[in-house]
Amino acid sequence: MSLARVHNFAISLDGYGTGEGQDADHHFGHAGERLHEWMFATRWWQAGGSGGVDNAFVQQHGPGIGAEIMGAGKWGHPGWQDDPDWKGAWGPNPPFHTPTFILTHHTRSSIEMEGGTTYHFLDASPAEALETARKAADGKDVRIGGGATVIRDFLAAGLIDFMHLAVVPIVLGRGVRLWGEELEGVEKDYVVETISAPSGVTHVTFTRKGI
Amino acid sequence: MSLARVHNFAISLDGYGTGEGQDADHHFGHAGERLHEWMFATRWWQAGGSGGVDNAFVQQHGPGIGAEIMGAGKWGHPGWQDDPDWKGAWGPNPPFHTPTFILTHHTRSSIEMEGGTTYHFLDASPAEALETARKAADGKDVRIGGGATVIRDFLAAGLIDFMHLAVVPIVLGRGVRLWGEELEGVEKDYVVETISAPSGVTHVTFTRKGI
Repeated sequence: MSLARVHNFAISLDGYGTGEGQDADHHFGHAGERLHEWMFATRWWQAGGSGGVDNAFVQQHGPGIGAEIMGAGKWGHPGWQDDPDWKGAWGPNPPFHTPTFILTHHTRSSIEMEGGTTYHFLDASPAEALETARKAADGKDVRIGGGATVIRDFLAAGLIDFMHLAVVPIVLGRGVRLWGEELEGVEKDYVVETISAPSGVTHVTFTRKGI
Repeated sequence: MSLARVHNFAISLDGYGTGEGQDADHHFGHAGERLHEWMFATRWWQAGGSGGVDNAFVQQHGPGIGAEIMGAGKWGHPGWQDDPDWKGAWGPNPPFHTPTFILTHHTRSSIEMEGGTTYHFLDASPAEALETARKAADGKDVRIGGGATVIRDFLAAGLIDFMHLAVVPIVLGRGVRLWGEELEGVEKDYVVETISAPSGVTHVTFTRKGI
């Protein structure tokens, strides 16, 4: 069974997955890197990093994944549609290493990167995109990579099988929220577990009942 | 030093302190009692309850408190202003046991209840109300009892010294939010700690730096 999984998706205490004022140099707007410092401090990210709770969670990002789906807001920046040379925010060897599907109304030709990542551009509903990504994943799982609006749309459509959130104890005040009215009661379909780490981050997992 | 303290304030994963559709019979609207089941399950609430992390936190509610401030939305219900016989939602012996100040534009005469609780009605700013409550507390601390908008207003005014939140792993989708744009960066003035309990609730404490 090929699952749809969310990993390492960081939100602030007030539920923002990214700050306000995103541009090519400020991928998370006024949030800067504050939502992800806990991740950069792990051994997974860098030698000499911490090997505890945070590290145990971040390591789940790669194994078993055969494709990723992400929103154009994650892949690009406001205005990327007018920049034919833009190839994503992660340089020549992106950390996805699989077919990676970008949801956008502004499709373009696929881009093959180093390390196994190929960017494909899809103008499709969440269900259609997941079907396409599953075929490309060749039996493996599909990671739903964000941003916040993409995860919200997939959750609302009942398509997420596993979701790992990292709640960072900061109050951003503004930005793009993960939660929305359409998600009322979403927890009923999941086993929800929480564990706080010494870093101050609280890991919350949603595991679909019965999988 | 008389501190202003928040205790046992429960919010959903998406940050709601109460649901939508509050009335005299539905004090928390469509949230029902789901934000507080963790509290009812403790020894503090009932004999035979659990004695772990949740219980350790809830017990801090009373000790050292000499007065409470709450909003009219907590004390009353939509329409209480037209009900001269309304005496709060907690019966003849309310769980406050101190002078208790209700913030409202619709003031009325003070009401003396059993067990040491006297309701006073104040049309005042957060700072003015805190000054009044501190006098009544006679050197003890003042509890800021909620609801969400009252806590947000006191936080935004820089008046809270200690805040204990209980984040309950449900998604309410609608209601009254604790967080707001005016609280951006509020964590910078506090030591923030988090601990998740076996109940699934995550306790988050804000302790003002230097107190």
